[in-house]
Amino acid sequence: MKIFIHEDFLLQTDAARELYHDHAKKQPIIDYHCHLDPGYIANDHRFDNLGQLWLEGDHYKWRAMRTNGIDEKYCTGKESSDWEKFEKWAETVPYTMRNPLYHWTHLELKSGFGVDKLLNPGTAREIYEQCTGMLRTPEYSARGLMKKFDVRVVCTTDEPADNLEHHLSLKNEGFGIKVLPTWRPDKAMAVENAAVYRAYLEKLSEVSGVRITRFSDLIEALRNRHDFFASVGCRLSDHGIEAFYAEEYTQTAIEQIFDKVYGGRELTREEVLKFKSAMLYEGALMDWEKGWTQQFHYGAIRNNNTRLFNKLGPDTGFDSIGDFTVAKAMSRFFDQLDRDNRLAKTIIYNLNPRDNDMIATMIGNFQDGSVAGKIQFGSGWWFLDQKTGMEAQLNSLSNLGLLSRFVGMLTDSRSFISYPRHEYFRRILCNLIGNDVEQGLLPSSEMAFLGEVVENISYNNAKHFFNF
Amino acid sequence: MKIFIHEDFLLQTDAARELYHDHAKKQPIIDYHCHLDPGYIANDHRFDNLGQLWLEGDHYKWRAMRTNGIDEKYCTGKESSDWEKFEKWAETVPYTMRNPLYHWTHLELKSGFGVDKLLNPGTAREIYEQCTGMLRTPEYSARGLMKKFDVRVVCTTDEPADNLEHHLSLKNEGFGIKVLPTWRPDKAMAVENAAVYRAYLEKLSEVSGVRITRFSDLIEALRNRHDFFASVGCRLSDHGIEAFYAEEYTQTAIEQIFDKVYGGRELTREEVLKFKSAMLYEGALMDWEKGWTQQFHYGAIRNNNTRLFNKLGPDTGFDSIGDFTVAKAMSRFFDQLDRDNRLAKTIIYNLNPRDNDMIATMIGNFQDGSVAGKIQFGSGWWFLDQKTGMEAQLNSLSNLGLLSRFVGMLTDSRSFISYPRHEYFRRILCNLIGNDVEQGLLPSSEMAFLGEVVENISYNNAKHFFNF
Amino acid sequence: MKIFIHEDFLLQTDAARELYHDHAKKQPIIDYHCHLDPGYIANDHRFDNLGQLWLEGDHYKWRAMRTNGIDEKYCTGKESSDWEKFEKWAETVPYTMRNPLYHWTHLELKSGFGVDKLLNPGTAREIYEQCTGMLRTPEYSARGLMKKFDVRVVCTTDEPADNLEHHLSLKNEGFGIKVLPTWRPDKAMAVENAAVYRAYLEKLSEVSGVRITRFSDLIEALRNRHDFFASVGCRLSDHGIEAFYAEEYTQTAIEQIFDKVYGGRELTREEVLKFKSAMLYEGALMDWEKGWTQQFHYGAIRNNNTRLFNKLGPDTGFDSIGDFTVAKAMSRFFDQLDRDNRLAKTIIYNLNPRDNDMIATMIGNFQDGSVAGKIQFGSGWWFLDQKTGMEAQLNSLSNLGLLSRFVGMLTDSRSFISYPRHEYFRRILCNLIGNDVEQGLLPSSEMAFLGEVVENISYNNAKHFFNF
Repeated sequence: MKIFIHEDFLLQTDAARELYHDHAKKQPIIDYHCHLDPGYIANDHRFDNLGQLWLEGDHYKWRAMRTNGIDEKYCTGKESSDWEKFEKWAETVPYTMRNPLYHWTHLELKSGFGVDKLLNPGTAREIYEQCTGMLRTPEYSARGLMKKFDVRVVCTTDEPADNLEHHLSLKNEGFGIKVLPTWRPDKAMAVENAAVYRAYLEKLSEVSGVRITRFSDLIEALRNRHDFFASVGCRLSDHGIEAFYAEEYTQTAIEQIFDKVYGGRELTREEVLKFKSAMLYEGALMDWEKGWTQQFHYGAIRNNNTRLFNKLGPDTGFDSIGDFTVAKAMSRFFDQLDRDNRLAKTIIYNLNPRDNDMIATMIGNFQDGSVAGKIQFGSGWWFLDQKTGMEAQLNSLSNLGLLSRFVGMLTDSRSFISYPRHEYFRRILCNLIGNDVEQGLLPSSEMAFLGEVVENISYNNAKHFFNF
Repeated sequence: MKIFIHEDFLLQTDAARELYHDHAKKQPIIDYHCHLDPGYIANDHRFDNLGQLWLEGDHYKWRAMRTNGIDEKYCTGKESSDWEKFEKWAETVPYTMRNPLYHWTHLELKSGFGVDKLLNPGTAREIYEQCTGMLRTPEYSARGLMKKFDVRVVCTTDEPADNLEHHLSLKNEGFGIKVLPTWRPDKAMAVENAAVYRAYLEKLSEVSGVRITRFSDLIEALRNRHDFFASVGCRLSDHGIEAFYAEEYTQTAIEQIFDKVYGGRELTREEVLKFKSAMLYEGALMDWEKGWTQQFHYGAIRNNNTRLFNKLGPDTGFDSIGDFTVAKAMSRFFDQLDRDNRLAKTIIYNLNPRDNDMIATMIGNFQDGSVAGKIQFGSGWWFLDQKTGMEAQLNSLSNLGLLSRFVGMLTDSRSFISYPRHEYFRRILCNLIGNDVEQGLLPSSEMAFLGEVVENISYNNAKHFFNF
Repeated sequence: MKIFIHEDFLLQTDAARELYHDHAKKQPIIDYHCHLDPGYIANDHRFDNLGQLWLEGDHYKWRAMRTNGIDEKYCTGKESSDWEKFEKWAETVPYTMRNPLYHWTHLELKSGFGVDKLLNPGTAREIYEQCTGMLRTPEYSARGLMKKFDVRVVCTTDEPADNLEHHLSLKNEGFGIKVLPTWRPDKAMAVENAAVYRAYLEKLSEVSGVRITRFSDLIEALRNRHDFFASVGCRLSDHGIEAFYAEEYTQTAIEQIFDKVYGGRELTREEVLKFKSAMLYEGALMDWEKGWTQQFHYGAIRNNNTRLFNKLGPDTGFDSIGDFTVAKAMSRFFDQLDRDNRLAKTIIYNLNPRDNDMIATMIGNFQDGSVAGKIQFGSGWWFLDQKTGMEAQLNSLSNLGLLSRFVGMLTDSRSFISYPRHEYFRRILCNLIGNDVEQGLLPSSEMAFLGEVVENISYNNAKHFFNF
């Protein structure tokens, strides 16, 4: 019986195999955007079993299980054991064929645990026990897994008010893998609920030591934290936004809006947009001053299911792709920064692939020759982090920009066993280029250069771009 | 000379051929959404000739003929004979290469009539005469054609005010193929023209026996008809909407809007949207109470050509794909139903393929584990009912949901010779999966399971999902 | 070493090779939309060197260079020599792999100059010198290049106020290749800036001999110029618009809007839209009266980068794809013309490929049987003028309309060395059809007919459609 995840998985041509095995495979991993818990690294967390590793917090899997007719108690329910949940997941896996979960699952089993068997009800118990046994060895601790996959840098996602204790302790300890924070000030922009916002300001005030009663105080407090993040090694910011905000506003208007929300009154839709525009702009200036790279993840509609949001909270599998109109606002936003020569290096991640070509041309408007690929089109995000989605992003970027200058893959994951997604990406990338060579779309004489390009996209471009 | 529509048409790999010939081909047909005239079935209609069968009412063909420079008199003109129209169609057919009409035409000739020749001016007369001869035999009556293609269930599309006489007569007769009505209350929502709407209310009043003067009467009358449809075997509703309507409204506001339009005054755009929101919601509750499946066909811009609409009326080939922004309204609509646990099984059909991925993630927000594939992304609709369109839908559904739980194909057709579209779909499905196996994207060891998946999508999923 | 741009470049199947070599390759070129300077043709311009030919005015290349980290002085800077710019371009070329520039560059080298070498820093000097030497021979003058590529008709893009002196002189001279003007009245619609618009009116007044003080004068002056363009052989108009404009307006309202802007006052957004709607409509009537074909290039967001726009002006590489909602306005615009039977032949070019299917169905609404393919979906425009973009347009047109009636390719270029883009298009077209034949999607028995189709799309359709 042929092994499913074999050496040449996804590699359809000789050129693809050469590019992958001689170039891509050997590169270390820089995971410049993820949602790992830094405490797990600092404490070198051990996982109890494969069910826990895989199903605790993985809303992709929950979503598939619900679609497969599995009751919520086996997804997020506290009443079910790790094994019971795993069993239901194993029952679902065959039904995920053609979904990325099918590939991810078997890649993680193979590259993580050396398991060649396909997961299904017949193999569930055996696989569970084998992997659980391995998880109890030091090689499979949080740090062990990072080393196993040759990870060199990890950028977590952190709140300005966070004290970064784990990052600091890892830094002080001299842990060999760089674990850097990322500045994600979403809460500082979330003025939709006055009371919640006020509470956040109190917290930020406390952490920063800046008493916040006016807008300028808020900026000062954030700048204070921004400096602190920089001191801990932060090189990237990140923003989760529905759309780009670039409304016209005056400083006075923003101050009044701040006073209003600070005073406990709810803002109008227009005021919210103006305020977000101001915050996005102010944050962008800070990033530019520090030479950081700013990331924008835009286009999701979150928490669509009120009933289950009330029960389970955010990030539980009830988000989806939006259809926002954003090009003009995006253009205005970057233009107002570029106008004063204060546009930081940037990565734009969009969630609706129908906008890929728009994004891939938008970035071209602000490439200024100062650094190769200054404005980046981010790798297929969230729902698009699959073969079709990644190929679509790679093709749009290729057709409308320079693929060769791409900073490449990231996991965006909460899991220590997601690193095979870099392998997945690299196989897909090599296969795409390999097919082009095979079809004569790229010159077969240039395999050495293409090998370099693949190495760069896998590792070197990110290393240089972010100054790691 | 190689036959065009041969046994392995569209099946490019061994795996595809195995999946199709050993699994898909043998499945009966459930055509859960079509526009057949139930009177034709009740009366077991005979067709005069191939021209009539093919060109009377087929706006796809008219559209292609107009594009090919054929005068309107050969499309819809009363002055041209069936043969003259057929002749012009035959002249057009070669120019439709790469259009689905080219495949449909030859699939219908082959699977319907055993004709291997390609249709063109040189073969027109011969094909016309051969098929016309066959159409005059009992095997080619309306019922004969349904039996020939092993149809088990057909769901027509019907107006709440319809008396369903033909469905009743077929039921009473005990006709072996289930011919069920579908609840399509578009007219009950069409408040754009006060006079037309009032006339509709009078008709509905008469049929339901409920005197309608207030909004609550309208709902009572509809509920009365809804019950009647259920008693005749209806299991599905259907809604033709431009976009999803989910405006906020109060009961009082809706009552006032009803009074206004009932009183003969035209509504504002805002009032129309509120009213449609209320109607869509009320209808959804009825469907949920009965355990029906609700269908939404959204996104068309209809009757773009005023000159020819005035001459020929609707459904004559002057509709096209819209570019509406719908995600947030769609989310609100389903959420308000789900919030109270009253969301019925649902199928969403979109007309603009740029929204495929949005839809395929939207359905995931409301999968609740109660039934596999509770919220469905419908098969490529109308303009998208072609190889590229079907593959795009299948791929989005696969990447972002569970293809394995898909209820599959429907003809959406007005013609008794459209059943080969199920064959077309199945060949495309098998080819897609077969290619994945061939490329190692799916494990070749799982052919038996994939065969089951193909059988399920072809027949079993629909059978179970709709409780036929 | 295998040559990159060989005889069968892009042609993957026997059928493709047959279609290309026996049919497409032999067809002359009709370049019905380009931005060539007619003065260069009238004066039979000679190019100093390959750097000048390639890099003076080519914003595609500048954009790629900026993305590759090349300083602006080597793109548009006056301080750099042609060779210095070329050297930086040669350095960039390998990094454009998978971008159309890589194919265009080597196609132009091969088909234009017989150069088989790949351009890179190692070959830059040799290629520069070889091609520069050839450019200094008469065969490589502006006219020489047109003859070399067997160009039969060229339609330039011209302003209503232009005196068309070069077109007239070429006509009088009896130059063998038709060089016809195209009516592009964008400035007559550009009422966003009152002062600039008034200046334009003065100019138009002077050229037309019509004193313009009221809206009706403006129309009279334009009609006067429209007649003049017709007398010089013009057969097409062209409009660069963000979106389609089809606001409701009264004649009185338009007159007042005109008076306002004529009087130096700035218009509101609403007034601008109304005015553009009126102008678009009036222009469409003129085109219909003359039997011309009207072209619409819509959907770009231009001059996104204010800083560099202020320095370099328009058309310097800072434009991108927009995400406008246009279907309903487009429908209204064409419908109001069709309603009175005054809709001219039309070509719609869209810049966002997510709208391809919408466009491909929109054109079907207004096909009236009067001429085959009366309403055309234009070939992949600007950013979409690449393999993926062209294939997407060809596939949408095929699936939703009649590819066989397509008027085919145009360069849209400012360069005399862009004609290989017709070759590129034809190879892609033949490859697409050839693949279909190879896969059994088109009948292999119909190669002769498919050869005709390819010849028609390459040449005959345009010749007949435009009455050249």
